[in-house]
Amino acid sequence: MVGYAFMGRAHSQAWRVAPRFFDLPHDPVMQVLVGRSPERAAQAARRLGWAEVETDWRRVVERDDVDLVDICTPGDTHAEIATAALAAGKHVLVEKPMANTLAEAETMAAAARAAAAQGALSMVGFSYRRVPALALARDLVAEGRIGEVRQVRAQYLQDWLADPDAPLSWRLDKARAGSGALGDIGAHIVDLTHFITGQRVVGVSAMLDTFVAERPVATSTGALRGTGGADRGPVTVDDSAVFLARLSSGAPATFEATRFAWGRKNAIRIEVSGTAGAIAFDFEDMNVLNFFDAADDARTAGFRRVLVTEPDHPYMAAWWPAGHGLGYEHTFVHQVVDLVEAVAAGEQPTPSFDDGLAVQRVLDAVERSAASHSTFTPVDDGGARAATAPTVASLSREGA
Amino acid sequence: MVGYAFMGRAHSQAWRVAPRFFDLPHDPVMQVLVGRSPERAAQAARRLGWAEVETDWRRVVERDDVDLVDICTPGDTHAEIATAALAAGKHVLVEKPMANTLAEAETMAAAARAAAAQGALSMVGFSYRRVPALALARDLVAEGRIGEVRQVRAQYLQDWLADPDAPLSWRLDKARAGSGALGDIGAHIVDLTHFITGQRVVGVSAMLDTFVAERPVATSTGALRGTGGADRGPVTVDDSAVFLARLSSGAPATFEATRFAWGRKNAIRIEVSGTAGAIAFDFEDMNVLNFFDAADDARTAGFRRVLVTEPDHPYMAAWWPAGHGLGYEHTFVHQVVDLVEAVAAGEQPTPSFDDGLAVQRVLDAVERSAASHSTFTPVDDGGARAATAPTVASLSREGA
Amino acid sequence: MVGYAFMGRAHSQAWRVAPRFFDLPHDPVMQVLVGRSPERAAQAARRLGWAEVETDWRRVVERDDVDLVDICTPGDTHAEIATAALAAGKHVLVEKPMANTLAEAETMAAAARAAAAQGALSMVGFSYRRVPALALARDLVAEGRIGEVRQVRAQYLQDWLADPDAPLSWRLDKARAGSGALGDIGAHIVDLTHFITGQRVVGVSAMLDTFVAERPVATSTGALRGTGGADRGPVTVDDSAVFLARLSSGAPATFEATRFAWGRKNAIRIEVSGTAGAIAFDFEDMNVLNFFDAADDARTAGFRRVLVTEPDHPYMAAWWPAGHGLGYEHTFVHQVVDLVEAVAAGEQPTPSFDDGLAVQRVLDAVERSAASHSTFTPVDDGGARAATAPTVASLSREGA
Amino acid sequence: MVGYAFMGRAHSQAWRVAPRFFDLPHDPVMQVLVGRSPERAAQAARRLGWAEVETDWRRVVERDDVDLVDICTPGDTHAEIATAALAAGKHVLVEKPMANTLAEAETMAAAARAAAAQGALSMVGFSYRRVPALALARDLVAEGRIGEVRQVRAQYLQDWLADPDAPLSWRLDKARAGSGALGDIGAHIVDLTHFITGQRVVGVSAMLDTFVAERPVATSTGALRGTGGADRGPVTVDDSAVFLARLSSGAPATFEATRFAWGRKNAIRIEVSGTAGAIAFDFEDMNVLNFFDAADDARTAGFRRVLVTEPDHPYMAAWWPAGHGLGYEHTFVHQVVDLVEAVAAGEQPTPSFDDGLAVQRVLDAVERSAASHSTFTPVDDGGARAATAPTVASLSREGA
Repeated sequence: MVGYAFMGRAHSQAWRVAPRFFDLPHDPVMQVLVGRSPERAAQAARRLGWAEVETDWRRVVERDDVDLVDICTPGDTHAEIATAALAAGKHVLVEKPMANTLAEAETMAAAARAAAAQGALSMVGFSYRRVPALALARDLVAEGRIGEVRQVRAQYLQDWLADPDAPLSWRLDKARAGSGALGDIGAHIVDLTHFITGQRVVGVSAMLDTFVAERPVATSTGALRGTGGADRGPVTVDDSAVFLARLSSGAPATFEATRFAWGRKNAIRIEVSGTAGAIAFDFEDMNVLNFFDAADDARTAGFRRVLVTEPDHPYMAAWWPAGHGLGYEHTFVHQVVDLVEAVAAGEQPTPSFDDGLAVQRVLDAVERSAASHSTFTPVDDGGARAATAPTVASLSREGA
Repeated sequence: MVGYAFMGRAHSQAWRVAPRFFDLPHDPVMQVLVGRSPERAAQAARRLGWAEVETDWRRVVERDDVDLVDICTPGDTHAEIATAALAAGKHVLVEKPMANTLAEAETMAAAARAAAAQGALSMVGFSYRRVPALALARDLVAEGRIGEVRQVRAQYLQDWLADPDAPLSWRLDKARAGSGALGDIGAHIVDLTHFITGQRVVGVSAMLDTFVAERPVATSTGALRGTGGADRGPVTVDDSAVFLARLSSGAPATFEATRFAWGRKNAIRIEVSGTAGAIAFDFEDMNVLNFFDAADDARTAGFRRVLVTEPDHPYMAAWWPAGHGLGYEHTFVHQVVDLVEAVAAGEQPTPSFDDGLAVQRVLDAVERSAASHSTFTPVDDGGARAATAPTVASLSREGA
Repeated sequence: MVGYAFMGRAHSQAWRVAPRFFDLPHDPVMQVLVGRSPERAAQAARRLGWAEVETDWRRVVERDDVDLVDICTPGDTHAEIATAALAAGKHVLVEKPMANTLAEAETMAAAARAAAAQGALSMVGFSYRRVPALALARDLVAEGRIGEVRQVRAQYLQDWLADPDAPLSWRLDKARAGSGALGDIGAHIVDLTHFITGQRVVGVSAMLDTFVAERPVATSTGALRGTGGADRGPVTVDDSAVFLARLSSGAPATFEATRFAWGRKNAIRIEVSGTAGAIAFDFEDMNVLNFFDAADDARTAGFRRVLVTEPDHPYMAAWWPAGHGLGYEHTFVHQVVDLVEAVAAGEQPTPSFDDGLAVQRVLDAVERSAASHSTFTPVDDGGARAATAPTVASLSREGA
Repeated sequence: MVGYAFMGRAHSQAWRVAPRFFDLPHDPVMQVLVGRSPERAAQAARRLGWAEVETDWRRVVERDDVDLVDICTPGDTHAEIATAALAAGKHVLVEKPMANTLAEAETMAAAARAAAAQGALSMVGFSYRRVPALALARDLVAEGRIGEVRQVRAQYLQDWLADPDAPLSWRLDKARAGSGALGDIGAHIVDLTHFITGQRVVGVSAMLDTFVAERPVATSTGALRGTGGADRGPVTVDDSAVFLARLSSGAPATFEATRFAWGRKNAIRIEVSGTAGAIAFDFEDMNVLNFFDAADDARTAGFRRVLVTEPDHPYMAAWWPAGHGLGYEHTFVHQVVDLVEAVAAGEQPTPSFDDGLAVQRVLDAVERSAASHSTFTPVDDGGARAATAPTVASLSREGA
């Protein structure tokens, strides 16, 4: 595993716990943790349970006893590490966002396709796909329980930047993070829309905003760095991203990703209205899926508050009795399970790098649309979609 | 009162009930009901409690014993009746949408301004402003309890057209209704945004969709009208309207109005995130306002579920003890109270025709934006905004 | 109508509104309001819409032009007025609690039975039976949608006495009010249990508490009455009543009525678990019934949040489109509708005085149980139940 | 660890995970798992991560390299194992219910007191005390944020026996399980009441019910065991326990524990109303505590939906960013943390065996009360309470 911050902790927990609750075809060995500082990496390895430490990921990629590389570093390093690992025949799990730029993402996806032909498989860490309630939502949609998808409304609301004195961090630096709310959390709701509906976003009209242009600079000692005006630094990413979208079928969707919604801590909300029903979810109540079945008689129809903790629910047979819910980190455990099973079966895990690339292309279209005053902007399809998908012109019915 | 359908019933109830619970400066007399069919109008008058019936609104407008004309007809008739009534020196209450076209709305607003100088006052029936929880939301925002407005998210979700076999009605005919979800329900969330934030929508990027292009034709006898293919007729309005918006301050907002959201019956949802807190509302729980105060200490901070039934809450001292909630029609009672009090005081009631025109201009911009593939479209400000409002280019980026 | 305070206002609104929305077989005329003070009664009559005023209810009872007497006075006067009115051949609606003592209630019930034989009908004002969601709950239970009733949990929580400085009122005086939380609000949840389950409470084990023994005395001028220590007076009723109960079938139930539950304003909560499903209700969200159908497949089963605003729902066809909810006072409108329809049909309205007596007997058993340290106390059945009901000894244990 | 079923899995996860997220003063080593069947124990040990296997707990208790014994077996074995382990100088963690009989519990508590003097500490596994939201509730009560406790309402609702064809298991056998819903889940809400209020239940009035007297017998092969009538066996424990209670201060409380509440999977609900506010919790939304502060001004007062995921909340600094909630098993992790810290500090962990005994005494009083037709039954205080606590006679105000 490369990196050991927030995501490194979550991934370590997943590798450790997965084999204790699931019958995995392989028994994961948490062998080596990579970090630039040998001291801090060693400390993290002890805490997180890795056997060894390395300071250069290149050496790990070359090792014969490493089968899989788990990349938990900031987005600007993903492309280099992932392509090298794939080229060396390693399976790769890379945290989202897959990359900071579309070009990097395309390189990675191409590398993944080439590596897959050699048996090295890859996956992007859109962990929220593994919330049982959202996996159930996907299943219900796929089974036709809500009919054809008519509309999607998706929000990802946080509030950790609502205070203008919250300090700068690498997540607010475009060079490191690629984008702000858009790539960090907006990427999740785009991917979830792809996942649940089985469709792709094919065009967007977007607005990006940075509400607080400068923030206090926190040094590692907690004091303010620099002198004079240097006690505040610029925020170079978006604080908020809102966009309208068209899905492959032409269905309209609305998206909002923000870190300024006071009182909303990690409110991933997605509601999909279909021709025969609807599903609605909010991560602040993550063990619940709300499901409306239009076939219920009108007297007793209503959104069903499904507590997604039954043995018949995705992933749940491995855990606890009904009513004993899961938490955030379980999504990473499920991710490991799905990854290891796919690898063992020699099948492409999902979401693939192509799936990650699809999200990246949407983010790119959002940025281009926002830069041109919300002009409707088709998502680049890399030429692959042209033959089968509806054209944008025929999607939007309003001009007809 | 002109018209006696859904809105006529609601307005009649309001005129009847208001003086029983509020100390009004005038005692309303429900004198004459206007309807084209004398038999049906007479029947309605008996049921709704009006003393007389007329078949031509022009005769009513001329009567000396009529002080106020309440217009509850479809939108295509509003302009003619309202301007005539105002010209005759009557006070006017007109249901929303104020008009079907922007030109009509501008004519009406000009007539209202002229009439006001002569003492004839006018008001648009955006009744949801009178939901106590939303009036409280406005008050809290005005008092600075959530600080500066950062973002707005507004939805108006219904499902009565989700069934493709739901029949045609005048509301689906552009000639009668002006627009579909946009004008019928989207207008409400635009007006509520204006009301609660004290700002105006100054530009939009929009998508309009008609999901079901043809619907069964229901005749007045319940049988299908016509022969051959004529058992289905075209839907000429939008089923769904989604749009991004900028407010006067540059704050971004998202709007969705749809009649296709299965399981949502009349879900007017509005959440306003500010620099110091947030408010959130859903009409499906209409006696509740959710309020987040960022000044609460983090250990015990959380959205407060305020049951808006206390004597200190807007309109509530006139009603029942705490916890005994109100229903939909009470908004119309409050509307009558506010109207009668303003008329008695000789002050402009709100929302004025200018306020109604402001909404109409937003709807117009939405339609133009949708027709040009979601291009960001400034809301026409009638020349009045140019000097004071931010230009689109300078919108949003704080400090930029 | 006799009395014109809180309940008088609610009843007046009901008489006024009912014929505007429902097709009543008779057209109610609001003829005469009775109050001891002629000035205040006249003022109330003007406000509430009654044609005349009387200061002695006896004169009203004797009038030939009065068909029905609506009694909204405190409980200590109910028996005398109701029996006189029934003896004079008037139909009678009496507010709950039907009486302050069991003896009075028995007298009233006997009078009602005798009068019914002469065509004078009577009803107790347990208005919450007319909440559409609770009427739906009753219907679903009666239709077998939750199977056999297994357990009931009922709470009525308010907080208007939680502040120890809230002043004394007649409701805290045993001589006037009969009891405290028990009779005022506990009576409602007992009646609702009878109504929804179709069963009776046949035995109880109870605790009554008075948390604040003395309260400030508020005089009519707002100043404190008396001298010396007399600025506070004793509370002579219960602040809280909790009791376990057996229903006719042996099913166990729990009840709590309190005015000390901070943050709960009028939380009437009732959940009935059956062998095939469950219903749950909270008046703080009064337009919703939660319904669990155990026949739903486990993957998509969950409490359905039924918005009880559909035309197929009890009383709702007369009102507004789906999603446009009702408020507290609508229950009184529905009560008038049911009463007038029963009277016109010559049928016994429900709840009858016998139904009211049944509640009174439960309250009496609660008081006796509490006075004997929560001893299980059978509800007196007036001799009628002995032959058919299970004895306490045989209650409950299925198959035993 | 002795035992490896449901609780064994949860405890193993806790021992494994705790040192990865918390700075523990000792590093737990998962040394030896005890099970009667060597094969199945070995399989469990591999899955759960224990180094060795034993088939006789006595041998483990004698080992020098064992510091702590974690007892996860059914309740009928707790007393023997725990007292032996304590006598051997081991620290002991025992799952709840502490014992099946009051006599056993008293023996264990005495053994624990004696062992503590020798440095061997003990704890009962009431894991729900470690739900962060409930730990916060306790803290808020202790800090006086809701004032004096006025009333408690507690429910523990499940539905896994609502189906009469759910099979027999050891949990339905009085000899193995001691009692049914009462000891299995009712014990939790009694302990939580003790924990949150800092008071004890001192008397109860109770009803116990067994709704389904016989159930299908499932053999280990899934087929029905026996012939003739032996395909069904008797349920010898309670399905439902409801009781009224007095707390030390005299405050009344209501309790319900049932496995027959369709649609409620693990609904642990507790609401405490105080003189200055209230707290309310439902485990089906386990990351939330609802808190009402009566000091909030009436216009904006309401239950605050506190998402208990902030760094300032109990246990949460060790986990994820705000909004990223925990699940059921985390309570066991926190239990390990608190236990290891107490052991390292040489301090009595809580809940102690005396705390467990206190719960057991309440359960015993419930059974005695139910057996005597809900007679109010004082909780035996082992002679210790007499000098300091109020007598029962003075608690219940109703006879005063």
